[in-house]
Amino acid sequence: MTDCLFCRIARGELPATILYEDDQAVAFEDIRPQAPVHVLVIPRKHLTNLLAVGPEDEALVGHLLRVASQIARDKGVAESGFRVTVNINRDAGQSVDHLHFHLLGGRRLGWPPG
Amino acid sequence: MTDCLFCRIARGELPATILYEDDQAVAFEDIRPQAPVHVLVIPRKHLTNLLAVGPEDEALVGHLLRVASQIARDKGVAESGFRVTVNINRDAGQSVDHLHFHLLGGRRLGWPPG
Repeated sequence: MTDCLFCRIARGELPATILYEDDQAVAFEDIRPQAPVHVLVIPRKHLTNLLAVGPEDEALVGHLLRVASQIARDKGVAESGFRVTVNINRDAGQSVDHLHFHLLGGRRLGWPPG
Repeated sequence: MTDCLFCRIARGELPATILYEDDQAVAFEDIRPQAPVHVLVIPRKHLTNLLAVGPEDEALVGHLLRVASQIARDKGVAESGFRVTVNINRDAGQSVDHLHFHLLGGRRLGWPPG
């Protein structure tokens, strides 16, 4: 997807504070942080959202969540706690049509989650 | 884990409104729903939380998220939107020490997610 904002970040064509990247995943700081730690983890592969994930992508999605865990450790919030959230479509406020997991930590997170 | 609440639900030893199960995953209604649709998706394998997920579990975790998507479709909230959230440790309010993904939908979900 040539024009997708997150594809462009993954390709290094748009600036972002990259925290981690490998051949499958890229993680970077959310530009509107909602907690002391607020990081987005995305696949390099363009998937619109969770509904576009097929059986062949299951390991990829699990990998993204493991990347989130590792970043939580690196940021020092693994023990205190963190939340990983993914939004799909309008009711959830999905703002970019490229699958992305939000990692939030560093403060007490309320319930319900939105 | 003999005494784990969610292991017992997965084995059918405790009552729950089961919506889906296969050899890897079980999904059931949250007993304290925070939205018209509020379902928990868990692995049969006992994993304390996301921090316990190893490379060998990546496909399993992706499978759990695909199960959540399928339930969103079955419940009629895939198009309107839904959120999937996982809590790790105290700051996120993790209440049962067995990995579980919350699927919420059927209403507008606010931001931040807690």
